Amino acid sequence: MTDENAGTEGGVPLETVDAWWRAANYLTVGQIYLLDNPLLTEPLRPEHIKPRLLGHWGTSPGLSLIYAHLNKLIVERGVSTLYVCGPGHGGPAMVANTWLDGTYSELFPDIPLDGDGIARLFKQFSFPGGIPSHAAPETPGSINEGGELGYSLMHAYGAALDNPELVVACVIGDGEAETGPLNASWRAHAFLNPKTDGAVLPILHLNGFKIANPTLLARISEKELRRFIRGNGYDPIFVTGGFDGEDHFAVHERMAAGLAEAYDKIAAIKLEAEQGGFQDEGPSWPFIVLRTPKGWTGPAKVDGKQIEGTFHAHQVPLAGVKENPEHLAILEEWLRSYRPDELFDDEGRPPAGFDALRPVGALRMSDIPFANGGIEHALELPPVAESALDLPERGATGEATRVFGKWLGRIMGANPDFRLFGPDEVLSNRLDGVFDVTRRQWGEAIVPNDELLAREGKVIEALSEHLMQGMLEGYLLTGRHGLITSYEAFIHIVDSMFNQHAKWLESASHVEWRKPISSLTYLLSSHVWRQDHNGFSHQDPGFLNVVVLKQSEFVRVYLPPDANTLLHVMRHNFGTEDRINVVVAGKQPQPQWLGEEEAERHVRAGVGIWDWAGYEPGFDPSDPTATDPDVVLAAAGDVPTTETIAAAQLIHEKLPTLRIRVVNVVDLFRLQDAGEHPHGLSHEDFDRIFTRDRPIVFAFHGYPTLIHQLTYRRHGHDNLHVRGFKEKGTTTTPFDMLHLNDLDRYRIALDVLHRVPGLESNPAILGIAEEWAKARADARGYAYEHGEDPPFITEWTFSRPAF
Amino acid sequence: MTDENAGTEGGVPLETVDAWWRAANYLTVGQIYLLDNPLLTEPLRPEHIKPRLLGHWGTSPGLSLIYAHLNKLIVERGVSTLYVCGPGHGGPAMVANTWLDGTYSELFPDIPLDGDGIARLFKQFSFPGGIPSHAAPETPGSINEGGELGYSLMHAYGAALDNPELVVACVIGDGEAETGPLNASWRAHAFLNPKTDGAVLPILHLNGFKIANPTLLARISEKELRRFIRGNGYDPIFVTGGFDGEDHFAVHERMAAGLAEAYDKIAAIKLEAEQGGFQDEGPSWPFIVLRTPKGWTGPAKVDGKQIEGTFHAHQVPLAGVKENPEHLAILEEWLRSYRPDELFDDEGRPPAGFDALRPVGALRMSDIPFANGGIEHALELPPVAESALDLPERGATGEATRVFGKWLGRIMGANPDFRLFGPDEVLSNRLDGVFDVTRRQWGEAIVPNDELLAREGKVIEALSEHLMQGMLEGYLLTGRHGLITSYEAFIHIVDSMFNQHAKWLESASHVEWRKPISSLTYLLSSHVWRQDHNGFSHQDPGFLNVVVLKQSEFVRVYLPPDANTLLHVMRHNFGTEDRINVVVAGKQPQPQWLGEEEAERHVRAGVGIWDWAGYEPGFDPSDPTATDPDVVLAAAGDVPTTETIAAAQLIHEKLPTLRIRVVNVVDLFRLQDAGEHPHGLSHEDFDRIFTRDRPIVFAFHGYPTLIHQLTYRRHGHDNLHVRGFKEKGTTTTPFDMLHLNDLDRYRIALDVLHRVPGLESNPAILGIAEEWAKARADARGYAYEHGEDPPFITEWTFSRPAF
Repeated sequence: MTDENAGTEGGVPLETVDAWWRAANYLTVGQIYLLDNPLLTEPLRPEHIKPRLLGHWGTSPGLSLIYAHLNKLIVERGVSTLYVCGPGHGGPAMVANTWLDGTYSELFPDIPLDGDGIARLFKQFSFPGGIPSHAAPETPGSINEGGELGYSLMHAYGAALDNPELVVACVIGDGEAETGPLNASWRAHAFLNPKTDGAVLPILHLNGFKIANPTLLARISEKELRRFIRGNGYDPIFVTGGFDGEDHFAVHERMAAGLAEAYDKIAAIKLEAEQGGFQDEGPSWPFIVLRTPKGWTGPAKVDGKQIEGTFHAHQVPLAGVKENPEHLAILEEWLRSYRPDELFDDEGRPPAGFDALRPVGALRMSDIPFANGGIEHALELPPVAESALDLPERGATGEATRVFGKWLGRIMGANPDFRLFGPDEVLSNRLDGVFDVTRRQWGEAIVPNDELLAREGKVIEALSEHLMQGMLEGYLLTGRHGLITSYEAFIHIVDSMFNQHAKWLESASHVEWRKPISSLTYLLSSHVWRQDHNGFSHQDPGFLNVVVLKQSEFVRVYLPPDANTLLHVMRHNFGTEDRINVVVAGKQPQPQWLGEEEAERHVRAGVGIWDWAGYEPGFDPSDPTATDPDVVLAAAGDVPTTETIAAAQLIHEKLPTLRIRVVNVVDLFRLQDAGEHPHGLSHEDFDRIFTRDRPIVFAFHGYPTLIHQLTYRRHGHDNLHVRGFKEKGTTTTPFDMLHLNDLDRYRIALDVLHRVPGLESNPAILGIAEEWAKARADARGYAYEHGEDPPFITEWTFSRPAF
Repeated sequence: MTDENAGTEGGVPLETVDAWWRAANYLTVGQIYLLDNPLLTEPLRPEHIKPRLLGHWGTSPGLSLIYAHLNKLIVERGVSTLYVCGPGHGGPAMVANTWLDGTYSELFPDIPLDGDGIARLFKQFSFPGGIPSHAAPETPGSINEGGELGYSLMHAYGAALDNPELVVACVIGDGEAETGPLNASWRAHAFLNPKTDGAVLPILHLNGFKIANPTLLARISEKELRRFIRGNGYDPIFVTGGFDGEDHFAVHERMAAGLAEAYDKIAAIKLEAEQGGFQDEGPSWPFIVLRTPKGWTGPAKVDGKQIEGTFHAHQVPLAGVKENPEHLAILEEWLRSYRPDELFDDEGRPPAGFDALRPVGALRMSDIPFANGGIEHALELPPVAESALDLPERGATGEATRVFGKWLGRIMGANPDFRLFGPDEVLSNRLDGVFDVTRRQWGEAIVPNDELLAREGKVIEALSEHLMQGMLEGYLLTGRHGLITSYEAFIHIVDSMFNQHAKWLESASHVEWRKPISSLTYLLSSHVWRQDHNGFSHQDPGFLNVVVLKQSEFVRVYLPPDANTLLHVMRHNFGTEDRINVVVAGKQPQPQWLGEEEAERHVRAGVGIWDWAGYEPGFDPSDPTATDPDVVLAAAGDVPTTETIAAAQLIHEKLPTLRIRVVNVVDLFRLQDAGEHPHGLSHEDFDRIFTRDRPIVFAFHGYPTLIHQLTYRRHGHDNLHVRGFKEKGTTTTPFDMLHLNDLDRYRIALDVLHRVPGLESNPAILGIAEEWAKARADARGYAYEHGEDPPFITEWTFSRPAF
């Protein structure tokens, strides 16, 4: 701790900082308690009190202290600073400060910077139809929702990437500091380049308690905490104060000095980095520990019970104010302790002196373009055609993700604000093409025999799905672009982060001044149908079931059946805003079906009849109802598509006159009706493709019930029979996996024959059943000898083998 | 580091440890490569090699080193030790060591402790129908699946609770150490009582690399790592070796000394605790850092490329062995470097000298009852009746979770091996009854004004759903009982842990020698319909959608509509084994419906017609088909039940002759058909309750599509109209939430009237629509004034108000 730069000399006087802080505290208490008499122009009476007291006081004074002091530094130094508010329910404090900044009134003109505004500000808080008790999309300058905890620091690191002039001040509550995701973020500075990226300044706010318990980090010795912080690669600065009635100015001085020291250190690190430093090891970034009492400046004791500095200060420290005159008096005393008459003039306007503490324009944390500004640069997408797979014929082998990786490399080459995140699965998911143009960014030691690591690069990999998702979110929320790739089964790790991001997008869409951000796109590979040596614990396609629950405007699911389709799905996704796109595509060599132009059309349609794979003489693409199939074989997903096409071929060999329609679904929401999802087909279009009354055997990548869930309103629903993953898995070959789950080509063919009227006793059924048994025995025998499946179909026969 | 107790004097000679280690390494390499010639009795030829090389070598030598040295300590000291294997793919090493222990052959008699056994052991590994490449339920002594990473240390801490004599040696891979859940676990020692609980010895295995990247912890300085470990409250012991061809015995000596030091420290801590120590602060437990090269003892270089000590050693360090004679020669040299002729006799049996390193019976880590032994003590459940809510009449108000909490306290009083875990939500979920008998266990400082904390107690609370779930899993997997309570929305945080536990149960059910364990039960409260000041980010009932995807034998979902039903649901759950029970119940005051005996019957039935709430003159419970309702109103969930009953009352007032059946579903899987879930109703029973052809309006707690998903095979499905949460949420009153999602009583009543043929133009519709509009306006006005909803129904009118 140093005394340098304490704002009493030269800079903004601490008296102004203190007044701002008192004003913010007053406005916070007012939001929780007051329905009327907002400026205390008359004695407080029961009817001025909100009928129901909701909200969170405990963390608020600390958040406001930080806010006021950051403003001071920004004014004095002109450093662009983003405030990430981690503590769950610091909403009222953030709203109070952004109102004092003036931004709140600019963005919400019905809440002006005067007494009327204060009255409305108070009323809306935690009130029916109002604003929640945590920082949210409605809060100016926020990129982090304080609802579900754990994501503040990863958001901060994502925001700092490629913003070399930015300081991200990230306040972490000591409750949040117990979560897994937050703990996975401490060391994320290892992925920051001190020259080309911004700085993150963690501010651990130790106020000692969470909802009803003490916090772990507040109860260990300062020595241990110091070691913990240094052990995470930071240089700690402790600011402790406010206990035992300590004079507030003593704390202001320490806080000003601590923050100034931190900014000095950041500046020194940036300078050293500019001059070529940190080639061998990364810097020790500053880290502030702010220890103040929970509910500081609130009532110390109520009814003889200690409140300040205990968990009782977490939410509403003083209850029953309307009914209990003694409590009402305590509240009035508490409010007046901030000296509101000095803080607001007769019209309720803050004093002119506050201008000295208000950064100008975009330097205001509440109006910083990084948080409120939308997409910085539109993405430039290189043409897909040059990266497409040139197929000699349908059924030729290719690796979808490898093909996509090449194109992704070109995108990353052309767009310096596009980053790829993955939990150590970029190479294993065969996206090696990106390393044609970039490297993995890595700030720790690089030693001989290391590969593809560099101090600067656009790929970030750490073995934490949480951290990768959170950094990508932070990157997108600050106006850039990116992609996350992961194992399909383990993406469930971030189910809840997905939910929260979807909810953020939904809420933000109602906030007029929030501009759209780039969509969050997942590429899930290493999927359920290819887990030869991993087995059951790696087999789970259920993320899609979580995704479809969110509001339809914001979510998309794609199951491209081959490489060129994957390319066009991604081309579509990368052009979108404010969505979450989930793409599932295998990394293993698989039959390829569509030429590049066909793939583009297929993706645009989202679902299509593949007449070249079906057997429908006289089929007319312009009028699918002109022919009348006996049965429809539908598929969604790469492996189910192969099995479906093979099943059609099997049946056709046995029953050449059976009219078989093959349908492929790439855009899963096409199955829902147009009233439920913007991509949904009309019932008419659905019926044209799937028919109203023919049996449909649907081979699905995921859990079969998902297809029923999406199609339950369709006319043909009762004729729909779905096969998919039914949680039968083990360490085995791909064919055996299909077999265990009744999704193999033989089973599909039998399903078809069992469902077409009149075929009940057709010998074809017996024939296929025999082939099924033989294939199974052969495959097991072959696998036992060779450790893998035999090649099943070597010659595909199509009516239209070329494009 | 000390030299004390190095096993060369007095204890097991290090030569034996080294021989064991070589044998384990040989058996590991053999599992990955050999299909034949397992003892290298003849020169290695291509046909001896597996056709497909799968598996993970990199972490295995380290795991085996630890295993061998732990065996030495166990033999020497008789300390009961559980080995938790965190590194993802250490499967072949764990299998090798448990085979050397003799346990593998005892548990799998077809794999004897001889050459035949070795041949089979080799073949099954990562082979179709064989065993996976990670520690799994099939692995003797394992309580941790090494598939999805992050859970080893929390499992270890859960296992140590209430097992004062146990040491849990938990090996953490440096890849796993990057995950959020693992990082949330470092400080879990704060919840251990050194006297009444066991010890956890973390062994951080730094081998430097994950799949294709270096690891973070391996690339920071030893100084920083030491600070990190001390900063997490541990006392680090570094064991580094194996680099630059270092003599193995030097490493053995350091490892023996390091482990001995750790066990000495644990013993000293336990002794001090016995003597009343650690009242003010907890001990610094020892922590081992084992730094060895990835793929140690494997091929150093292949084709001029460095393999040992790089990420290339992660899986199969030597490819193309069948085809490439040079590689074949390297493999043979590698295998022979372990001197197999010294390790296996002519029949392939390990040497008699290994007996000195084999703990006896239950002291074998591979046969330890904590891991393989099932439930230690059956749960004693106090009678529900004494804790039940005594209802004066139907519709009286009560708090379900508060009532349950009292009974839970009695359970915890009667069963010292029952623990409650929660992310700081035990009090806020109103389970305060447990504090009648116990406290929160807390090992850090306890200060004045703290409440309900103690050095010893059966409640554990940390703000990490991951840690709470993981510790409960560890507790259950070692034969005890428990419950986790959490916010409904945020339980998605552990979706993936739920999945992995369900998969563990499924896999374990196929392993003959695994005994059943106590079920994992969730109590989800603070649910979607009551989030007055939290809002949209706290509203998500989608965990149920994840749960229903798992195999039906292992999952149950209950939605008790009131307190007494909740009691009986829990009574049922606590008596079960090998299941995951999910219970959703509100904590707020709500109307109560069933007397205790009625509740018992209702839970047993799982679904029932509530004739007292319906209007079906002449209804005969023994034959529901005797009367013929015009419409069925069904509900699942506490809030939907209230709305449904109110809707029935509303309609009845308007249309007294309409025959309304009210159905309540408490056991959600009753909706599925008996062929799909063991709790499923037969179609006949379903039709008796829901009818085949009458309109059904179903008010559901969660997302409506889930009901469609469960019932799509039912006869009445096309007549089923479901209301539920449709992702419309904000900070508002309970009634407004229902209104936004079309789940309020008026909307339900209108749904009914719109669906009953002949009522299309009945004035009752207009009447209810008007009441709806008025209720909405009234409620908004009232809420604006009072901050909450008006009381809607003050007098319930039932045909049978008492019980």
